[in-house]
Amino acid sequence: MVRIILSGCNGKMGHVVSNVVSERDDCQIVAGFDIDSDIKEPFPVVSDPDHFDGKADVIIDFSHPSFLSKLLSFAKKNKIPAVIATTGMTDEQIEAIKEASKEIPIFFSANMSLGVNLILNLAKKAAAVLSPDFDIEIIEKHHNQKIDAPSGTALMIADSISSVLEHKPEYIFDRHFSREKRSKDEIGIHSIRGGTIVGEHDILFAGKDEVIEIKHTAMSKQIFAVGAVNAAIFLTKSKPGLYNMSDLVASIGG
Amino acid sequence: MVRIILSGCNGKMGHVVSNVVSERDDCQIVAGFDIDSDIKEPFPVVSDPDHFDGKADVIIDFSHPSFLSKLLSFAKKNKIPAVIATTGMTDEQIEAIKEASKEIPIFFSANMSLGVNLILNLAKKAAAVLSPDFDIEIIEKHHNQKIDAPSGTALMIADSISSVLEHKPEYIFDRHFSREKRSKDEIGIHSIRGGTIVGEHDILFAGKDEVIEIKHTAMSKQIFAVGAVNAAIFLTKSKPGLYNMSDLVASIGG
Amino acid sequence: MVRIILSGCNGKMGHVVSNVVSERDDCQIVAGFDIDSDIKEPFPVVSDPDHFDGKADVIIDFSHPSFLSKLLSFAKKNKIPAVIATTGMTDEQIEAIKEASKEIPIFFSANMSLGVNLILNLAKKAAAVLSPDFDIEIIEKHHNQKIDAPSGTALMIADSISSVLEHKPEYIFDRHFSREKRSKDEIGIHSIRGGTIVGEHDILFAGKDEVIEIKHTAMSKQIFAVGAVNAAIFLTKSKPGLYNMSDLVASIGG
Amino acid sequence: MVRIILSGCNGKMGHVVSNVVSERDDCQIVAGFDIDSDIKEPFPVVSDPDHFDGKADVIIDFSHPSFLSKLLSFAKKNKIPAVIATTGMTDEQIEAIKEASKEIPIFFSANMSLGVNLILNLAKKAAAVLSPDFDIEIIEKHHNQKIDAPSGTALMIADSISSVLEHKPEYIFDRHFSREKRSKDEIGIHSIRGGTIVGEHDILFAGKDEVIEIKHTAMSKQIFAVGAVNAAIFLTKSKPGLYNMSDLVASIGG
Repeated sequence: MVRIILSGCNGKMGHVVSNVVSERDDCQIVAGFDIDSDIKEPFPVVSDPDHFDGKADVIIDFSHPSFLSKLLSFAKKNKIPAVIATTGMTDEQIEAIKEASKEIPIFFSANMSLGVNLILNLAKKAAAVLSPDFDIEIIEKHHNQKIDAPSGTALMIADSISSVLEHKPEYIFDRHFSREKRSKDEIGIHSIRGGTIVGEHDILFAGKDEVIEIKHTAMSKQIFAVGAVNAAIFLTKSKPGLYNMSDLVASIGG
Repeated sequence: MVRIILSGCNGKMGHVVSNVVSERDDCQIVAGFDIDSDIKEPFPVVSDPDHFDGKADVIIDFSHPSFLSKLLSFAKKNKIPAVIATTGMTDEQIEAIKEASKEIPIFFSANMSLGVNLILNLAKKAAAVLSPDFDIEIIEKHHNQKIDAPSGTALMIADSISSVLEHKPEYIFDRHFSREKRSKDEIGIHSIRGGTIVGEHDILFAGKDEVIEIKHTAMSKQIFAVGAVNAAIFLTKSKPGLYNMSDLVASIGG
Repeated sequence: MVRIILSGCNGKMGHVVSNVVSERDDCQIVAGFDIDSDIKEPFPVVSDPDHFDGKADVIIDFSHPSFLSKLLSFAKKNKIPAVIATTGMTDEQIEAIKEASKEIPIFFSANMSLGVNLILNLAKKAAAVLSPDFDIEIIEKHHNQKIDAPSGTALMIADSISSVLEHKPEYIFDRHFSREKRSKDEIGIHSIRGGTIVGEHDILFAGKDEVIEIKHTAMSKQIFAVGAVNAAIFLTKSKPGLYNMSDLVASIGG
Repeated sequence: MVRIILSGCNGKMGHVVSNVVSERDDCQIVAGFDIDSDIKEPFPVVSDPDHFDGKADVIIDFSHPSFLSKLLSFAKKNKIPAVIATTGMTDEQIEAIKEASKEIPIFFSANMSLGVNLILNLAKKAAAVLSPDFDIEIIEKHHNQKIDAPSGTALMIADSISSVLEHKPEYIFDRHFSREKRSKDEIGIHSIRGGTIVGEHDILFAGKDEVIEIKHTAMSKQIFAVGAVNAAIFLTKSKPGLYNMSDLVASIGG
């Protein structure tokens, strides 16, 4: 039974993780970290990690970048692996995560869904085979309350594809009234916003008389929680190092 | 047997129209207009309409805006209805077309496909029912040689939808890095370019926990030729006036 | 403030309706009917309608066909309009609903979503314009726990389309190894099952070199509750008669 | 300059191959085989391979299963590699092809498109990672003149996926009125037919709250010709053996 500390337990994703864990029998939440420690949860909650005095096997973090430094100190001191699913880190913070991963296993990904990370994998494979004969476009759809565009996941997909292309592509977000033909070395990225769409990412490879599409549709935020929990369990069996979903996908044997 | 004059007979679309007509038995091409009158066609070709001395029931024009004035003069003088499928007209030219339609039946549309014009119709109906609770987005896909974005058809769809909305929407072509929530009063228009895609137009209505899509896929340019020929036949039975695909769709009884 | 009796208040959909109503300020639930009246709800629950002694403006029924007869008696006696969203009625029961609608307004539909009923409307329009030149196919997708196939909604769509076609089409559910060309007079209906897909209905009109699609995606069961509540409010302003979603769509001004 | 013999040069696909080759400068057609040798082609045509007395590097065969035996004899005798794109072979004929591949390089595939064979590859990878938690369904769309269902390509995809699954799945072609939940060990295969759709293959992986799709759309038959020509050139550099598109995809470095 894997013992989890849930950092950011009182946030939206914290609650979803909590629900996911309560339905599994291979893990349990033994403590929560949250700025607001007055909340009632079925596990003890502390605002300061140093006040935690139990035993834990892994941390899942869906809190806030401002909490990162405390979290890493605690994890390193106690040699507890950490799944960091919080987004919006600065370059310095990403550097700190890398540093910490020399001492403990750390899992860090902009998108915790197994499915999204699988299509990332498939898209790289497809790009390697089809480029430069096929044009690549990414279409992402999200709800009308999302303020960032494109989605972090769309950029992650574009970056992954770029990494296997010979010529580094330019990302194009807007073509209107430019009156120019599409160049070979671009990836179009399009952000559709509407209603309560949870999240869709569609990668198009358009060639001469044929089109290949790789698409992921998320129907709830639960998949990100499930991915984080799976990553946590994966981490308890891993050596110190920096891991991401590709490692998890690979470990599953794909 | 409807007798057609094909204006712009030596262009890409001219040849497609010519092929479509050759496979039908309710119409035939009796003459062509083209700058280049030296070409060999199974019908006489003249560069100057005044040199035409036969009988015709209707004109189909897939030529060039610069030819419009000569074409309208000829049509009005001989009282021959005209299907104008040439795109890129200036406001003055559109005005001239309207003027001419007081004397002869004229069919004028940015997209001659029956299917596209049907979805335009459906989209208006859907927008009237769903607005303002649903967000509207238009995604169009075309080949990598197309220089204009968005497509004329996408704009035509957006304009049609706008015409039934209470608040006039703003068209949004780019959301990247704006860090703002979607406003209620916008229509997102997205131009995907790649490979040899002939033409797709997808209209999304995204609401609370449900999405409605109306989509048209063109697999060849022939559908535009078929639409123009059907419009021509429709015109031979019509009174002077300005017609478009909605009238044709309505006449079919939808 | 419209006063609603919620019949089947303790079922899955009953709870969803209850949640939807609690977030609106134009209506409230004043009582519940349920076999199990011991449950704690924020409103009184009775198992026998005759034990209800309050005032109500409309009933929403998501219970079970076996409850219909009691429900209709109660509604007729007290002249209370009823939205019947329970599915699986026999022909005799449907007849009883029709009879009751001579005395009170009744809303009866296999699918309470406004969106689904709109696409039904659009599909009829499209079929009228495109038939018989376009082939019609319906693809529906649902979760892997659904036992009926095709979905009631898919059949409702097929029946609606049939009603506007000159030749009554045959419904085809399986083509494998038949080695025959598609006939003009058929509608293919395909049932995809997998995962937790809430519900998708896609209507294809495939013609010469063009395809039109009308698609509805449900992301939660809440849309059916919202539809039922809207229908209930519509009913409080209606005369006795049998109504369905088309009437509601029409009343919205589409 | 690779010298190609085109077997079945007077068939539909023969003409498409001929056009594709005429636009390339790395290969040319030096002779054709066809029952009907009276046709006029820009290369000599013989009905009996034994009458061919030139030099060739590779054969592309889009003829008929009845011609296979003569073709293989000729290829073996003259040590010329062969791309066999003819479909509908019996088990005995497939055995004969395997036998011949011990002496000469043979490329044999039910679908010559690079894109289709790439998605086959991606689908296997996805199935290996996602099974058994995700349900797999295949949807294929073709024109209304196609007599076989499901398409050979859909079956090829299903077989490929099966090959990586632990439990061999059952193929389900029809669910209507069965009133049973989907079993874990099935792959649903659905054949949509309509209009002039050239060919679409969509593989769905539906899991808990997420769906992954891998889709291929063919817009013309030319892609099969291009694939065959690429396979032919690949074959001229290969040792005796039986090859298929996976080998070609792998050689491209995916």
